[in-house]
This record gives sequence, structure tokens and C-alpha cells, in this order.
Amino acid sequence: MLDHLGDLKRTHHCGELRSEQVGEKVTLLGWVAKRRDLGSLTFIDIRDRWGLTQLVLDPEYQAESHAKAKSVRTEYVLGVIGEVRARDAKTVNNKLATGEVEVFVQELFILNNAQTTPFPVKDDIDDVGEELRLKHRYLDLRRPALQKNFILRHQIGLTVRNYLNAKDFLELETPMLTKSTPEGARDYLVPSRVHKGSFYALPQSPQIFKQLFMVSGFERYFQITRCFRDEDLRADRQPEFTQIDMEMSFVQPDDVFNLLEGMMVEVLKLLNHDVQTPFPRLPYADAMDRFGSDKPDTRYAMELKDLSEAVAGCNFGVFADCVANNGVVKAVCAPGAASKSRKEIDSLESWLKQDYGIRGLAWLKYGENGVTGPIKKFLGEELCVKLFEQAGGGQGDIMFFVADTREKANQALGALRCRLAEMLDLIPENTFEFLWVTDFPLVEFDDQASRYVALHHPFTSPNDEDMNLLKDEPGKVRAKAYDLVLNGFEIGGGSIRIHRRDVQDAMFAALGLSPEEAEEKFGFLLNALSYGAPPHGGIALGFDRICMLMSGEKSLREVIAFPKTTSAYCLMTESPSRVAVDQLVDLGVTVLHAPKKES
Amino acid sequence: MLDHLGDLKRTHHCGELRSEQVGEKVTLLGWVAKRRDLGSLTFIDIRDRWGLTQLVLDPEYQAESHAKAKSVRTEYVLGVIGEVRARDAKTVNNKLATGEVEVFVQELFILNNAQTTPFPVKDDIDDVGEELRLKHRYLDLRRPALQKNFILRHQIGLTVRNYLNAKDFLELETPMLTKSTPEGARDYLVPSRVHKGSFYALPQSPQIFKQLFMVSGFERYFQITRCFRDEDLRADRQPEFTQIDMEMSFVQPDDVFNLLEGMMVEVLKLLNHDVQTPFPRLPYADAMDRFGSDKPDTRYAMELKDLSEAVAGCNFGVFADCVANNGVVKAVCAPGAASKSRKEIDSLESWLKQDYGIRGLAWLKYGENGVTGPIKKFLGEELCVKLFEQAGGGQGDIMFFVADTREKANQALGALRCRLAEMLDLIPENTFEFLWVTDFPLVEFDDQASRYVALHHPFTSPNDEDMNLLKDEPGKVRAKAYDLVLNGFEIGGGSIRIHRRDVQDAMFAALGLSPEEAEEKFGFLLNALSYGAPPHGGIALGFDRICMLMSGEKSLREVIAFPKTTSAYCLMTESPSRVAVDQLVDLGVTVLHAPKKES
Repeated sequence: MLDHLGDLKRTHHCGELRSEQVGEKVTLLGWVAKRRDLGSLTFIDIRDRWGLTQLVLDPEYQAESHAKAKSVRTEYVLGVIGEVRARDAKTVNNKLATGEVEVFVQELFILNNAQTTPFPVKDDIDDVGEELRLKHRYLDLRRPALQKNFILRHQIGLTVRNYLNAKDFLELETPMLTKSTPEGARDYLVPSRVHKGSFYALPQSPQIFKQLFMVSGFERYFQITRCFRDEDLRADRQPEFTQIDMEMSFVQPDDVFNLLEGMMVEVLKLLNHDVQTPFPRLPYADAMDRFGSDKPDTRYAMELKDLSEAVAGCNFGVFADCVANNGVVKAVCAPGAASKSRKEIDSLESWLKQDYGIRGLAWLKYGENGVTGPIKKFLGEELCVKLFEQAGGGQGDIMFFVADTREKANQALGALRCRLAEMLDLIPENTFEFLWVTDFPLVEFDDQASRYVALHHPFTSPNDEDMNLLKDEPGKVRAKAYDLVLNGFEIGGGSIRIHRRDVQDAMFAALGLSPEEAEEKFGFLLNALSYGAPPHGGIALGFDRICMLMSGEKSLREVIAFPKTTSAYCLMTESPSRVAVDQLVDLGVTVLHAPKKES
Repeated sequence: MLDHLGDLKRTHHCGELRSEQVGEKVTLLGWVAKRRDLGSLTFIDIRDRWGLTQLVLDPEYQAESHAKAKSVRTEYVLGVIGEVRARDAKTVNNKLATGEVEVFVQELFILNNAQTTPFPVKDDIDDVGEELRLKHRYLDLRRPALQKNFILRHQIGLTVRNYLNAKDFLELETPMLTKSTPEGARDYLVPSRVHKGSFYALPQSPQIFKQLFMVSGFERYFQITRCFRDEDLRADRQPEFTQIDMEMSFVQPDDVFNLLEGMMVEVLKLLNHDVQTPFPRLPYADAMDRFGSDKPDTRYAMELKDLSEAVAGCNFGVFADCVANNGVVKAVCAPGAASKSRKEIDSLESWLKQDYGIRGLAWLKYGENGVTGPIKKFLGEELCVKLFEQAGGGQGDIMFFVADTREKANQALGALRCRLAEMLDLIPENTFEFLWVTDFPLVEFDDQASRYVALHHPFTSPNDEDMNLLKDEPGKVRAKAYDLVLNGFEIGGGSIRIHRRDVQDAMFAALGLSPEEAEEKFGFLLNALSYGAPPHGGIALGFDRICMLMSGEKSLREVIAFPKTTSAYCLMTESPSRVAVDQLVDLGVTVLHAPKKES
């Protein structure tokens, strides 16, 4: 028989009792973490969101409650009234915040029972498959490690909101049932019942709406809001994700940077972590050149070095020819890696050849007896030592070379740099390194579409001094666009937007949109720009990703309460699911029973 | 030619300057509210989110800026640098916060121009059609009245968040792409591209997810989140709306009431309004009996009186027969309404006959010369006066009677009560009267479906003492359900939930769901209840409606930034819209070109 809650109210959390409370009568509510019988006594660890307390039931003290306690199993929901007592010195548990005391139970209420859970409700359950955890997500979320992640997530959200409020920002809501303007990722569509044959789209971001808020004169907008992208999912993407979205009027990039830096300082304080400002700022071209990435992890050095000049005309034909043919020879020097085996090196080479299409990975070791390696015989000891010097390396290091186009060399060495940092354990723990990457190209040429496409989105403003290139040489235009990078992850991106109707028209034209297409897709924005749009810009941050990095997790699924799998499926609710035919008839749509399209 | 923003930064808002700043050099940014030329001088009112300041341009003082200013029109975006000067005593504008000063402009920057707006950007534009306002919503939102609404909305949201955070609540996010479990309103569906033929549903509320958070032991959850209902829209509904959603473990209704009352006190402080707690609590049956409504407006009295006993066996056959046949005779007394004309009374009667299906509306006036009215001759003076006395009325009043079933009489008189309060101007301005309505019936019989349906939702707990009626007499079971009513609007509803698997099974059975159907629709919830679900309950508040009432607005559209029309259409973006065929092919759905279904 289960007990009613009645007027039972907790006096303390399960993480709260200390020796100061000894002698007090308390009421606790929570879940059974563990029960064990020791002689005639029964011990129960009771757990709630705040911690764990040991209960003791003594048949001589309270026979009825003790008898009840014998029926109690793990994850039962209990209420207890009892007296706080000090533990014997030898049973004090220093690992537990409440370890100095235990509660002698006078009355025990069983508020609900529990079947045996499919996996234990505790941390460190690496042997439990993620599928099982996701299917019973309500139990997975009961584990202290996940509870901690979501408490932190809540705190980050509230910190951001209060920070932005103090800076005169207003949280304004934008619609979820919006217009489909496919550009970039696929839209999720929602058929309209009233307007049959027509569809809403779920927002990929509130981009246009937040710009309209600027046109409306709200000046400072933010929103922590859900966005949707129907992409082929990778491990670190979810079909729906949460964005900290912001927009400000009358600003330059520096204003956005200052605001965001202050915000991240506040957020990192939640982890008692001091962040230095201003964050370093790095133009996109330099980021690619020095780190082979537009989101470099700056927690460690190992910068890429361009050695083209040093090897030009050398005796190693691969290098010399590459340089002579407008290619580059770039290298990364891995500190203390000279002991890596030939096998390890070979496996790095085949990975890079396959994934980055380079022709080969040359290398030199600087051991105790000087430089060795297959290409040494071509280069000679003197040049080899000089190359190590130029790359900032020395004895004990290994140097990897790629000779290719600048783009390929950067990409391959950028990836290698990250891999080496992990292999060599060069990444400091509990470090948060922020970086602004700036001056992105405005557009890039899409070979498939045979036209320029916007690198960020078509509302991004060109740099003032590049404005005159927009019509004839769009590929050379730099944008007032910026990304915020944390520990090698892009956690946000934004730009100063186009606020002039004539410039927006020119931008659409540069992207190959006819005036009619531009009008059909974005007519309301173009109109809005004609009625007094202020200069404005903003940024959007990946809230999930920030939570993941701050929680020290490797997967977004550890910071999203009810995440979907990589096939956008919810194992718990088993959705998406088939729906009743009348629902579809009502909506005026029908399903094509086509087989699943290969992608 | 437009000017660049450059490094122009405002030193003050347009609502900030006072006589203390006289002599200071300031920079203002904003929109042109008005320009007028007076002699050789040009005056511009510049407006931003914070207010309005008068600029003066004098050709003798700064010829270039003055010349530029002559080209400036309403809603242009300006930046100005100038000196604050005191206005002459006779030009001081006391209606304007900045009315003591004006800014003598030294430099003027035109940051953007503006076409003539389709309606003036100012308040009190009642003559402008709502369609035009919605089509150019970005201009409508620029009006000070709407800006004020959204500033208040932002403040309410933040106040709620900080209040709940202080009470140990966590804001936890629930999915938007969820499972379709049609019950109540229609779902909005989202076709899945990966799982072709399957659909996600947009949430009607996070009900099940928040209960799962309780199963997970988060204990106190809230979320300000978007919900969706594909209903036939009425004037005060939107297809997407924002809900303040909450759930707590180990609580009884009183705990929810106390929490909410404290929250509303904080929220109303934003309007400098003191709210008295506790709020009155009224069982559903009493609310119907006394006010003819489950959401009575308690800003005024005019309660319904049951006069059946007094008129039983009287000489007015309609009354006597009705009482003899188990009907009731109820009345409402309208104070000071004796002067209403016969025509006005007749028009009330025909409205009630048509909309509420009553047979007639009897009435008596208590004038200077005693009681008059068509039924007086049957009742006699003595009984008439007695009826006025019983109903708390007297000279100068009018009494309206309905003789019908209890339900019809309550409904008709409840509606009449509200109408009379408006007609007689009995509703005090700027008053906020809260009320809890409790003890709703758990289920009601749906004649069409020939089964019981949940009045709130199928997860609502029966009252403990009615639990044994669930199987055989579900219609008599009262629920631990409650609504929060403000000024006659239901602003929230909630309940203590079922936390026991066996009770939930019994509830589904009472609603006519087979175990298989229950399992298919709600299997994951039933499972969750088997693993140690704590007693829990909560509430969901209509955020939009609260914002509307606090802003003193009559329509939700005045507090939703980008609302839809009553046909769920966005006039600004013209959505929903037709989409490209490949988008549909990609999703594996097709459109039936059926004509619009009549509803």
C-alpha cells in the first residue's frame, strides 16, 4: 500500500544536514539510492536534487517504520520524519557533504514504488549503451552528473538574460510558424490546414525578424530561442537547437565584441573561472594561415609555418617543384613527438591523404643524434636544422610537411595540428580560450550552383572600403562578419548587417537573384529597409554548445534534456511517428510511399 | 548621399536630457518624428526607444548641417552632435520629459532615409486599419504605445524568471519536434525527411515532458515556451502562443497557490500595483452558482441569486412550473439600471435567447413609485419587493430573471452579468482581481464521442476522497484542478497530476482508452510512472494574456510582435506560402488540391 503525501513537507534538502542540526526533528523527501540491512538495522541512502543523506531504521526504536523499510527498494519515493544524530567517528563519511550525520527515522512514508530500473541511477555508467539511456531518458536525467549539467544550463541562461537586461536589451519573441525562404540548410515545413497547399517553415534563425526589430527602433534585442535545421545530422548537430540571439542598432563590430566579452566573463564566473578581456582578434586569412582553421583552438600553440621560401630550389624535388608551381610548403612542429613510431606516422599520413586529398606527408625527426627522416638525404642536415629553427622546433620534436596548394596545405595541417595536440596531450584541462575571427570573405563561389553564395547570409554588410568591389569582384569583398571561437569550437557568429535598401539590392544581384526573386522571397525586408532602417548588427550564439563546453561534455546530447539521435529520432517517445489518415486529410496532404532516399 | 555611422556613439538617449545638461556637448541617435521650419531656423524632433528631444538648426550657427537638415523627412535616421541649451520660458514643453531643453546641432549625419510611411508612426491611429498595420508591422512596432507593451512584456518575463530562480526552479527546455498524441486541439504536424511517411507534432504544451522532469527528480521546473494549437481561430487566440509552464514535486494545491500568488505580486509591482494575498478561492460549483461562469470577473459584484424557493407556487405560471419541474428561477440585479428603456431590455432578451437558448428574460424595475414590469401583475407588489430584497437590490435597480435548467440559467445570467457591468460602467479601471477556481469535475460526458473526456487533461489527479468513484461514477469525481482567473480571464490552469501507474491506468480506462491504445500513445509516460514518480503538480499560465491584461489592451495582437490574423496568416511575410516541389519531394509528401474544407 502506498502512502498519501498529505501535508508532508520537507524541512531540509537531502544535501543540507550537518552536525549543527544534530538533535533536530527533520522531514526529508526523496528517492532511495541504496538500501542495506546490517544486523537488525536497516540503512537507506535517500537522494534528492541537492544531495544524499543516510537514514537509519532501528526495529527497537520504531518497529512499524522498520518493517516498512524492509520492503523498500532502489528508486522508491520516500518521505521520512526523524531525528538528526551524529555518526560515530568511525562511520563518518568525509566524501559526503552530509557524512557527519544520519537521520534516525520515526515515521516512514512510501510515496511511490519503482520497478527495477534498466540501468543504475548513478554516474559512471559508461558500459550502458546510449540507446538504452535515451529510451529511458527520464531515468538518465535522474543521474547526478546530468542534473548538474542542467542546473548549470539554467544558470547560464539566467546569467545571460540578466546581463543583457542590465545592458538595456529587451527579450522579444519571434514567430515559430514563419515563411520558407530556403537558403543554406533545409527548412522543416508545417502544412497549413486553413490555407491548404501552403506551408509554414520553422525558423532556421530569427535573422530577418531581429533585423525588423531594429527597423522598429527597439535598438537592443535578444532572445534565447529554438531554431531548426533539417540537415543530415552529424554527431554534434541536433535538428532543433537553442540560440542566444542578439541584435543592436548603431554599432560597429567592436561594440558587439565588448558586449559579448562582458557577457562571457559573467557566464564563466559560474565556474569560478576568470576570463581575460579583450579576447584576441584574428582576421580570417591569418587564422587559416597560422592555424589552418577558421575556428582555431588557441589553448595550445603549434602554429603552421610557411617554409616555401626556405625550401625554394632545394634538392627535394617535391618541395622545389611545388613552390615553383605556385604551391606552398608548410609545416607544423610537434613538440616532444620524436619518439613517435613509423607506424603512427604512417597512419597519420594515410588519414590526411584520404580525408584531405594531399599527396603525402613528409616528416623529419630531431633526435639526440641530429635530424633523421626519409627526406633528410635530399635536404641535408644544415637545411633541416634551419627548418626546425624557423618552425620554432628543436631536439625531441618532429616536423610534418605538406607541399600542396595553400588551401589544401592549410586544411590538412590544421587538422593534423588538432590531432597531434590530442595525441601529445597538449590541451590544458579546464581552460577557456576565446578568440574573435574577423574579416571573413563576403561570398564564395559555389561550383555546383555556378554562382556566388553568401558565406554567412545575404544580409551581411561588406567592409566599407570593399563596397565598390561588390558589383564586379564580389569574391574579393571582405565582410563585417565575425565568429566567436572557444577552445576550437565556433560558439557564435554574426555581422554588421546591410541597412540600406540600395546595398541590399546590390547584394542580392551579386548572388544572382533577380529583382523578382528577391522581391518574392524577401520583399518585406526590402520594404522595411526603405522606411528608415538604422545601421545595425548582431550575433547568434550556440547555447547548447556553450553549455556542452562549460559542462566539460563531448556531446550536445548531454546538455539537451530530450535529444534526438543522429537520424533525428526520439527513442523515448518514438517520434516521428505515423499519424491518423484524417489528420492528413484535414491538412490536405498525403504521403508518397517512396523508399527512403539515399543520401 | 548617406553618411556612414563611423565611430558616432550616442552620449545620451533621446529621453534623457534635462536642464542639468545645459552647456554639455552631446551626441544623439534616432528617428525624425517631425521637422518644421520656423523663420530661418529648422526644428527636428528626434525619437528613440527612450523618448524625444527637440533639435534646433540655425544656418548662422552651422550652415552645412542646416542645409542638410532641410532635406530631412519624417522617419529618416539621424545622428547629431550638438550643445544642450535651455529653452526660453515660453517655449518650455511640460508635456515632454526633455521639454526644458533643446539641442543646438553642430554636426548632422543622415544615416538612412525613409520613404513616406503608409501610416503615421505615432499613437492614436485608430483610423488606420489593422491589416495595414500588420502588413507593415515593423513600422507599427515603432509606435511608442507598442514599444511600451513590449518593454513591459520583457520585464514580466524577466521578473518571472528571477522569481522562480529564487524559489529553486530550473528553466529546462523541452522539444518542439515531438510526438503527435491528438487529444483536445489539433496538432500542427511536421513531415520527417529522414523517416518518410512519419511526422513530428509541434507541442500543444510541454505537459508530458514536464511530468517526466518530475520523474527525473528535478523537483522544480519552469519554462517560458512556445506552444501550438491548430484551432479555428477566434479573436483572442493565436496558432502559436507563449506559456509560463511550471511543475513541482511533493506539493498540494496550496503550495502551487502560494507560489503563484507571490509571483503575481512581483509581476504587478512592475505597474506599481499592490496585490493582496491570498487570492480568494472558489470551488467550480460555487463559481457557476454565484457568477454563472468558471472564470468570473470579481471586479464587481452583481451575483446571481437563486429565487426558486421564493417563487415556488407563485401565481406566475412560468416561474412556478419551472420550479415544479426541477428547474430554477435565478436572477441578477442591475444596480441603478431602472432607467433602461424597454428597447434596451428587449435587445438583451433577444441576444440571450439566441446565444444561450433560454425561453425568455423576465424583469422588474424598482422605480420611485414602486415595482413595475410585465410580470408584476402575477407576482404582486409584496413578493416583488421581497425578491428585490433577497437579491440585494432596491429602488433604482432592475432585476432580470431566467427560469430554466440550472445550467442554462447560470450561463445566460453569467453572460448578462458581464454585459450589464459594461453597459452600466461598473468595472473599475486599473484594478487587478485574482481568483482561484478549484474542484473542477475530472471528466465530462461527450455526447458526440459517447464517452467521458477529461475536462483538463487525462493526467489530472482525482480528489483523494473521490478516488473510489473513478471506475463506476467518473462523472461525480472532482479533480485536484484549478484555474487562475484575473479580471474575468482565465490566465492559467493546472492540477495535481496522477503519479501512480495504477491510477493512470484506471483514468485511461475511464476515458475509454484500451490498454493497447494507452500504451501506443502514452507508453513512455506509463513506463516512467513505474520507476519512482514523485507526487507532483503544476500550472501553465498564458503569458500573452497576462501581458495583454497588464498592458490594458483588448487584443493579444497588441502584445505579440508578429501575430497572425484570425485565419492564421502572416500579412507581413505572406506566410504560409506555396513551397518548391523539390522541398515536398524531399519530404515524401504531396499536396491534395482539395478545396478548402468548410468548418
